[in-house]
Amino acid sequence: MNIYDISKQAGVSIATVSRVLNGSPNVKPSTRRKVMDVIDRYGYTPNAFARGLGLDTMNSIGIICADSSDLYLAKAVYYIEGNLRKSGYNCILTCSGYEHSDKESALALMINQRVDAVILAGSNYIETDAERNLYIRNAAAQIPVFLLNADMECPNVFCTMCDDFKASQEVSGALIDSGMTDILYLYNSRSYSGMRKLDGYQSAYHIRELPVDKELMQYYEGSREDIDGVCRFLCGLRAQGLRFHAVFASEDMLAAGAVKYAKANGIDIPGELSVVGYNNSLLTTCSDPEISSIDNHLETLCAQLVRTCISVLNGEDMPPKVVYSGELIQKGTTRLPGFASQK
Amino acid sequence: MNIYDISKQAGVSIATVSRVLNGSPNVKPSTRRKVMDVIDRYGYTPNAFARGLGLDTMNSIGIICADSSDLYLAKAVYYIEGNLRKSGYNCILTCSGYEHSDKESALALMINQRVDAVILAGSNYIETDAERNLYIRNAAAQIPVFLLNADMECPNVFCTMCDDFKASQEVSGALIDSGMTDILYLYNSRSYSGMRKLDGYQSAYHIRELPVDKELMQYYEGSREDIDGVCRFLCGLRAQGLRFHAVFASEDMLAAGAVKYAKANGIDIPGELSVVGYNNSLLTTCSDPEISSIDNHLETLCAQLVRTCISVLNGEDMPPKVVYSGELIQKGTTRLPGFASQK
Repeated sequence: MNIYDISKQAGVSIATVSRVLNGSPNVKPSTRRKVMDVIDRYGYTPNAFARGLGLDTMNSIGIICADSSDLYLAKAVYYIEGNLRKSGYNCILTCSGYEHSDKESALALMINQRVDAVILAGSNYIETDAERNLYIRNAAAQIPVFLLNADMECPNVFCTMCDDFKASQEVSGALIDSGMTDILYLYNSRSYSGMRKLDGYQSAYHIRELPVDKELMQYYEGSREDIDGVCRFLCGLRAQGLRFHAVFASEDMLAAGAVKYAKANGIDIPGELSVVGYNNSLLTTCSDPEISSIDNHLETLCAQLVRTCISVLNGEDMPPKVVYSGELIQKGTTRLPGFASQK
Repeated sequence: MNIYDISKQAGVSIATVSRVLNGSPNVKPSTRRKVMDVIDRYGYTPNAFARGLGLDTMNSIGIICADSSDLYLAKAVYYIEGNLRKSGYNCILTCSGYEHSDKESALALMINQRVDAVILAGSNYIETDAERNLYIRNAAAQIPVFLLNADMECPNVFCTMCDDFKASQEVSGALIDSGMTDILYLYNSRSYSGMRKLDGYQSAYHIRELPVDKELMQYYEGSREDIDGVCRFLCGLRAQGLRFHAVFASEDMLAAGAVKYAKANGIDIPGELSVVGYNNSLLTTCSDPEISSIDNHLETLCAQLVRTCISVLNGEDMPPKVVYSGELIQKGTTRLPGFASQK
């Protein structure tokens, strides 16, 4: 029996069940009685709701991410853990890796812990094939699920995200409008946000009624830490005759590889080649020149995600989706008009 | 009542109590009875030992680190979590920050969770003033404590570390022997391992009967992410007339700043300035030239730490200290004879 069954049996909405279970005062006594009757009848108290029923819980929230040592995800875990701690919650951390079956079992194992909610950090948990997201839907039937940088319409799932489509479209458009119509789009993830970024890139061409050259969208298969591998990959593309005056990378590591590629081939940045990364990480300031990069305000996203999470656990009505905007922080690898600059 | 009291009351060693509590078969029945009698008499079962007594535990281990988004600590958390998971343990993560009082309360809060053991990841938990390490001693009276890259002699505390003194002494010595007697030692942490590295640097001069110039040991106070700040700091030292032909940095971020400093001042690397970092992180390959850096085999350390932890929880006798060696991975910022090179 889960929150849906309780809602159906009691004839009230899921939000109402949630409010009862979380001990919210904004429930009519008669409604509360209906819900509690159902729970008593079936003798079932999901762990996540034990607190609201006055039972002892661990006040723990599960964080699942693919790889907590990834620059971006490490920051996400750090911000989320800090905000949860300030709200009096522990965090149980699990790294699931990127394989679908591993993600599924990580979530199942987490549900088996006495966590009050689970946070999936990173857009790679949502795939384009809806069937492959069923495991999240099932989890949300038991405890609230919070997605960072991913989108899924499902009861008891709450999304906090950056509009990567828009940021990508804007920056691609600015590059095109500055005369760089042959932007190489370099990516290494087919996650939800990865595809949104790619869509934004293509859309920048579409809205200008320009053709998109499929050859210019390149997927890098190598390790997420092998900057030299990215450099060699681009050298290979060049050897095959591919020409481009800008590289737009779905993350900073790829952009750092593009900077190395330019250096290895005597290509001037930004004179002959513009480079844009994503995430505005430490790598951008380590590169020479420093890399212009889209900042998706991860710290703000994580603070909001935790606020939403705590509010939901307190039985408040929360919007299923909160969307922020990204912005290009212009450094040494681009010279685009009209963008914030940061030294 | 804790494991020491039990040991004293029962007249057996702490290791024996631990074996009994963990259900090890290598205990004489009469000894087991003595220990269990004491426990029964006082009616106290520390959570951490509940498992061995056949009670239900969460199979959780606490990881405390200062900042899980720090490049080095993020890797540590990732490796530790992965190894714990493979051994059937959950990890509860807490970031304590670098302040002493915050570290103390993070550990106290963790002990209050039902964790079976606690791992302190990062040498900043051990300070030179023994009084300031009392909180760890107190924690170890309740559950086993595992230190990554730090050293503390205390029952129920187990250390897995890299010999940073030796690695630092070797690399400093090699720089001196190559004619760079004026090595700037740049550091940003007074942690246990930070001080060991500094000692190794000084010792390289001592064993060569060379004086150590105090001006050449420079502490950087700025943010751990502000590479440009490091560059400005070094420019300031230069403006004050300080001269040096090598920079040995206690972590890669500082070394990346030194590379930027050289570039800003038209100093050739490694011709006029050698630079060595520490941790062999992603930053070393992002810099140009790539940074020679000491690798302290973090992945191996973490795997060993978790092996020790699981063995201790299984009641096995484990050595209180396991020490690995670091090694310089030579890249583009040095030209030292006799060191491994990696492209």
